Amino acid sequence: MTADDLVTLRRDLHQRPEPAWREFYTTARIVDELESRLGDDLDALHVGPEAIAGDHRLAVPDDAELTRWYEQAHETDVDTATLERLEGGYTGAVAVIERGEGPTVGLRVDIDGLPRPESAELSHKPAAAGFRSEHEGAMHACGHDAHATIGIGVLERIADSDFAGTLKVFFQPAEEVVGGGKSMAESEHIRDVDSLLAMHVGLDHPTGEVVAGIDGFLAVSHLEAAFTGESAHAGGHPEQGRNAVQAMATAVQNLYAIPRHNDGKTRVNAGVVEGGSAANVIPDEARIVAEVRGETTDLMEYMKHRAEQVLRSAAEMHDCEVSIETGAEAPSASSDDELVSIVADVAGETAGVERVLERDELGGSEDATYLMRAVQERGGSACYVGVGTDHPGGHHTATFDVDEASIGHGVDILAGTIERLGRRAD
Amino acid sequence: MTADDLVTLRRDLHQRPEPAWREFYTTARIVDELESRLGDDLDALHVGPEAIAGDHRLAVPDDAELTRWYEQAHETDVDTATLERLEGGYTGAVAVIERGEGPTVGLRVDIDGLPRPESAELSHKPAAAGFRSEHEGAMHACGHDAHATIGIGVLERIADSDFAGTLKVFFQPAEEVVGGGKSMAESEHIRDVDSLLAMHVGLDHPTGEVVAGIDGFLAVSHLEAAFTGESAHAGGHPEQGRNAVQAMATAVQNLYAIPRHNDGKTRVNAGVVEGGSAANVIPDEARIVAEVRGETTDLMEYMKHRAEQVLRSAAEMHDCEVSIETGAEAPSASSDDELVSIVADVAGETAGVERVLERDELGGSEDATYLMRAVQERGGSACYVGVGTDHPGGHHTATFDVDEASIGHGVDILAGTIERLGRRAD
Amino acid sequence: MTADDLVTLRRDLHQRPEPAWREFYTTARIVDELESRLGDDLDALHVGPEAIAGDHRLAVPDDAELTRWYEQAHETDVDTATLERLEGGYTGAVAVIERGEGPTVGLRVDIDGLPRPESAELSHKPAAAGFRSEHEGAMHACGHDAHATIGIGVLERIADSDFAGTLKVFFQPAEEVVGGGKSMAESEHIRDVDSLLAMHVGLDHPTGEVVAGIDGFLAVSHLEAAFTGESAHAGGHPEQGRNAVQAMATAVQNLYAIPRHNDGKTRVNAGVVEGGSAANVIPDEARIVAEVRGETTDLMEYMKHRAEQVLRSAAEMHDCEVSIETGAEAPSASSDDELVSIVADVAGETAGVERVLERDELGGSEDATYLMRAVQERGGSACYVGVGTDHPGGHHTATFDVDEASIGHGVDILAGTIERLGRRAD
Amino acid sequence: MTADDLVTLRRDLHQRPEPAWREFYTTARIVDELESRLGDDLDALHVGPEAIAGDHRLAVPDDAELTRWYEQAHETDVDTATLERLEGGYTGAVAVIERGEGPTVGLRVDIDGLPRPESAELSHKPAAAGFRSEHEGAMHACGHDAHATIGIGVLERIADSDFAGTLKVFFQPAEEVVGGGKSMAESEHIRDVDSLLAMHVGLDHPTGEVVAGIDGFLAVSHLEAAFTGESAHAGGHPEQGRNAVQAMATAVQNLYAIPRHNDGKTRVNAGVVEGGSAANVIPDEARIVAEVRGETTDLMEYMKHRAEQVLRSAAEMHDCEVSIETGAEAPSASSDDELVSIVADVAGETAGVERVLERDELGGSEDATYLMRAVQERGGSACYVGVGTDHPGGHHTATFDVDEASIGHGVDILAGTIERLGRRAD
Repeated sequence: MTADDLVTLRRDLHQRPEPAWREFYTTARIVDELESRLGDDLDALHVGPEAIAGDHRLAVPDDAELTRWYEQAHETDVDTATLERLEGGYTGAVAVIERGEGPTVGLRVDIDGLPRPESAELSHKPAAAGFRSEHEGAMHACGHDAHATIGIGVLERIADSDFAGTLKVFFQPAEEVVGGGKSMAESEHIRDVDSLLAMHVGLDHPTGEVVAGIDGFLAVSHLEAAFTGESAHAGGHPEQGRNAVQAMATAVQNLYAIPRHNDGKTRVNAGVVEGGSAANVIPDEARIVAEVRGETTDLMEYMKHRAEQVLRSAAEMHDCEVSIETGAEAPSASSDDELVSIVADVAGETAGVERVLERDELGGSEDATYLMRAVQERGGSACYVGVGTDHPGGHHTATFDVDEASIGHGVDILAGTIERLGRRAD
Repeated sequence: MTADDLVTLRRDLHQRPEPAWREFYTTARIVDELESRLGDDLDALHVGPEAIAGDHRLAVPDDAELTRWYEQAHETDVDTATLERLEGGYTGAVAVIERGEGPTVGLRVDIDGLPRPESAELSHKPAAAGFRSEHEGAMHACGHDAHATIGIGVLERIADSDFAGTLKVFFQPAEEVVGGGKSMAESEHIRDVDSLLAMHVGLDHPTGEVVAGIDGFLAVSHLEAAFTGESAHAGGHPEQGRNAVQAMATAVQNLYAIPRHNDGKTRVNAGVVEGGSAANVIPDEARIVAEVRGETTDLMEYMKHRAEQVLRSAAEMHDCEVSIETGAEAPSASSDDELVSIVADVAGETAGVERVLERDELGGSEDATYLMRAVQERGGSACYVGVGTDHPGGHHTATFDVDEASIGHGVDILAGTIERLGRRAD
Repeated sequence: MTADDLVTLRRDLHQRPEPAWREFYTTARIVDELESRLGDDLDALHVGPEAIAGDHRLAVPDDAELTRWYEQAHETDVDTATLERLEGGYTGAVAVIERGEGPTVGLRVDIDGLPRPESAELSHKPAAAGFRSEHEGAMHACGHDAHATIGIGVLERIADSDFAGTLKVFFQPAEEVVGGGKSMAESEHIRDVDSLLAMHVGLDHPTGEVVAGIDGFLAVSHLEAAFTGESAHAGGHPEQGRNAVQAMATAVQNLYAIPRHNDGKTRVNAGVVEGGSAANVIPDEARIVAEVRGETTDLMEYMKHRAEQVLRSAAEMHDCEVSIETGAEAPSASSDDELVSIVADVAGETAGVERVLERDELGGSEDATYLMRAVQERGGSACYVGVGTDHPGGHHTATFDVDEASIGHGVDILAGTIERLGRRAD
Repeated sequence: MTADDLVTLRRDLHQRPEPAWREFYTTARIVDELESRLGDDLDALHVGPEAIAGDHRLAVPDDAELTRWYEQAHETDVDTATLERLEGGYTGAVAVIERGEGPTVGLRVDIDGLPRPESAELSHKPAAAGFRSEHEGAMHACGHDAHATIGIGVLERIADSDFAGTLKVFFQPAEEVVGGGKSMAESEHIRDVDSLLAMHVGLDHPTGEVVAGIDGFLAVSHLEAAFTGESAHAGGHPEQGRNAVQAMATAVQNLYAIPRHNDGKTRVNAGVVEGGSAANVIPDEARIVAEVRGETTDLMEYMKHRAEQVLRSAAEMHDCEVSIETGAEAPSASSDDELVSIVADVAGETAGVERVLERDELGGSEDATYLMRAVQERGGSACYVGVGTDHPGGHHTATFDVDEASIGHGVDILAGTIERLGRRAD
């Protein structure tokens, strides 16, 4: 596979972005590519329900939504049999190459798009060059198209190398909703991984810059609170209402006021709120979709505990009920020194890489941490690598794009690291 | 026209409820009925834009919504030419009978339905008897089907009577959103009215009970506040956001806390709120649909002034902008003694009426007050009459229904009062 | 006793105002006056602990405060033995005249001053005429000096009349803190009262105007909430605090936002708040002194119930404890028609009275309601009379004063009414 | 001077703790000691108004308070002439030794006590050994008695050494209220300092442990907001009030909810609040004493800017005025590498020191940062040294005490570092 091949593949994926748990076309296309390019070099290819622990999927959309995207994927030229294995939102794949005695190395790449429109301005290269999203309202605005492509490139490279050991590439769905990492971390495939690599392009680092080990993942938890009160005529009998919007407003004010914590960063956001039905009716329903984060899992738990207390007390104060559902979660994690050193060494020797940073902080959340911790808790090591790429717009914005040169950098650095880990004792 | 005729008409209207400014079928049906039944007895029939002051319509829905209902009305058998006069949401009608020298008496009846589903339980008579709403999600849940019917019944009765003077019946649209009263009060038709009657069925009074003069209308004003801030990544840069949901929550808490007023009843409700787009994004937009009320127009203005101050300061506190739009409004009003006495006398002599209350308080709002005040300010008098009807469910609920016997009571009382007002000096 | 005597007495009381439960001099002076003027005409004089049910005293100040005023009273020329009976804040008196067969009539007058400074401007008559308060920071700013005087005047008048029955005059302490009414209502003295009169001067009615029956007392309850959390260094470990000031602020916002009630007036006020110890310490203590009111006792109870829920939930939300103490309370009450008619008749015949209003609303609270209800609940009747007086400043302000002509009016109207109630059947 | 001398001096200072700007005895005693012990070795001794820039004093107490402590100091045996120079709260001193060519080295020690009671338990050594505070309600609960003593010890040691250069010891008042640092940083004495040392005992480090360079000072600013509204009778006319307590509560809720900042630690605390006068009066006054902090001065300024916006908008929302006064402030600062290395070296060679930490974070605030920045901004370097001491109770608690062995450690390390800085080029 040439660099051009990879660019073509990346543009194809870019053109058909699919949000979390709806990566039907994306998964099937990855499967097609792997089968056609690697053929017998592939020792196993686990697809959909076989790749993940389905019970541990988080933040799965409703059936209507899944069906819409599933049917849309059927209109493309990917293999129908593969698609059928994914029905119901069981997306993702794990590709395995076995090359005798040696360590089991994992590489995790995420594959989902975002539910946001893509710029149609001609200054936006995908629009100008004709590979802008065909799915209106969805976009690869975080580079996962490049990630999936790099995963395939690494498999090809290793198949041709003298790597000794086992390589597993995890094509993970639903990262953007913090929903897929757990389902892969709970699958059997992760259990024997000795060293896990994960990666991301960009993150405000330009093309040619590499961060060998990223840390500072904020642990995150999503909370959804539904308040139920009682409606009443706002003019005639306000006293007969139990006002869910008052409960919600009290909760919002106090959520943001949860005390800061001296041990590190904490975050809280009431990202979506709604309530009530009409101006003249005391609102009997209201809802908050919130998230809390912490620099450590403990700090996230601290925020979650306090947030739940705020939500419950706010309901009680206004004589309402509240049901609180915990949605997607991801722990914090950090990169291990030994892997970071190897990545730094390899990156230093990679063509096109001009600057290698040993460490940097992410500052956001990522559910790769589920897989990293699953490996680390069993005694293995993990490392999250940042591959710089010039990106005109910020992550998650309408004009985000990757410099495709960084796809090659990613393949080189990751494949190089994996080879180093599986170097035959000659 | 017999009582059975009126029941048939009421059931037909019940079956095709149309919410505010969408009363296309309803208006056209009223016009058809009046023309076929009264014919030459009718001295004028002002329809749609000729019945109202179009610039004074409040709370008009958007074009798509108007078009949908307009087209739906075209699928019925009402006169197409009439429908076309109503296009764009200019609904309602004013029917006039002139019978020589004498006072000009007005009767206002409202004709709109509510945007809420109707019960399909067989214990709900309209469902059992086959005249349940054909428009899913809309329902005559406040008896305006009976009101329109009574208006037609009164016109027929007066046409056959020896009433001396002029009778104008105002078939008013959009009462439920406090949106139509002003447009009729600003039209030329109200200007020469000496005595105005308005009426409502039910209001927790059983069949056979009549309230001669209803008072205690709360003046009301709708407010819609749209907060605009700036979004930011909730994990990465919370400090870069300007949080519209925090502004909204602060406003909600303080709206309900506007000081009570010693001069009388005040009300405030944040009936609908919403804001934000995703759990991990600092919300840059939020909205409150609120209403304020007062026992007098001054008290309503007090609440409105304080509410606006709360909304503006809450925005400023969180570095957001806010735009506040005043929606529908209605003043307070009261029934005049001389008319109340006449109604009470007539009601006392009406078959089927067992109990007459001189006065009662509404406790809610009604935009009939616009017409009442328009008449009173020109030196005329006005009276709002309550005609009891057994109603199984409360007003605005899925099981509301009227006891059709009360239609006859309404016609008898109102026509009787009008005859009394226009009694020929023999 | 002449009118001049009464004026002299009123000025003496005015000069030595004593706030709630500190009416040591005042009570002793009343006792002295009654003994010297009425002598054997007085059939009983219950003083201090014998006049009230001591366990039912509300809002009693602390011992240091009581002692300070007690000792101050000892520096005057009133009878020391009387003072000693009052020690510990058992103030007030009940004077009884028995004149054979006939109804038992009660008259309640209150005697306490207010803890506020009195104007020293020469435009303020007490300052110009030399009877301004000698107790800096205390003032008779609500006319209770006139009330006590009128009570004595009525006793003298009845002693000289041919009244048949029993008259009890209740000189009630601690009205201003809603603290004394209950202790008199729970005493044995009220139990056999058939008709109770209470009275107030002024209330924005000028000299010569009388309100025969005052209604519209708001029931009131005082609440004191003490929040306890845990302090922590605000810079070093904010997360270790449990912030009592946050709990308090959340409570304040939500107290004012308790839904208005359709049945009538409600009120809430967080009149005094405080919390915390230093800028750099997370506050572990905070306090709210609040009151709730209602047009009826039920409405007050509604507010109290909701307020307690707000206070408890606010504490819980911030992981604090809260103790809520109910302080002084007074129910609502209304004046009975039969007594109102008699008062109106008598007032109409009283010299100097130019205008008699049948009814008016108080709009505030008064613990005379305890005594009124105690009588009414046993089948008796009660009436609260307003005696107009020109007052330059508003009630409770530094320049309040009474027109002393109204003292005579008060004696005439009340004594006249009592005589009418105890008219001998000749 | 022997170690015993220093212990005696420390205990004497401990026994007479004086809070911020009231260090009359303390300053005079330091002056006495320096004059008697160093005599002609002292090249200059600037006292009171000559030691500080008086206009830059922050958080000065009122005159009555200053006078009380000033007069109390006069009852001791310190030099009256010295005391008189301090009148009005101009406390502190700067002692100078000049030893020819060489760098100018500064040492800053703080001397004030805290306004809190000291434990009288016999388990508390100052109580058992007879040097517990004689000033009830004041206590050396943060070790500044040891700091002042170490300052004197260092001067004695350097006077006897072959140090080449100038040594200035800043005996700084009012650290506990962040009030004195600025006045010394604005004085002329700091201007020529090349290297500044500051120090603190304890900070949870045991005796024998030293932190060569402390960082992580939070910049801090005190804010005092006074809200003014309008009072009204809470029962009669709540609508006539402008409620300062509602404004305050709204502000408190929103102060704590100021968004967290990704650049580092931020803090906010409404440490003292109060408002209102009586349960039945709408409060017309309320007050918040708050502080904000930031890991950098910019972060503190961010918090201050947002806090002021919250305070102003909260006032406006409730139609109140607010005046905001900025009180004491201190910037952040950090220790310079070159000085930290020297301190670490010297500490490593000091008898009794078992463990040297290169760096640690303070986590709180300190106005030594004013002096550190004043030196650093002119091109000099600064270092804040932590000298471990076993302390039974935490800083600022009633049972805080220092292990007096650490006094010797402090003198050794600081004098050793100063000598190293002024080592003669032989």
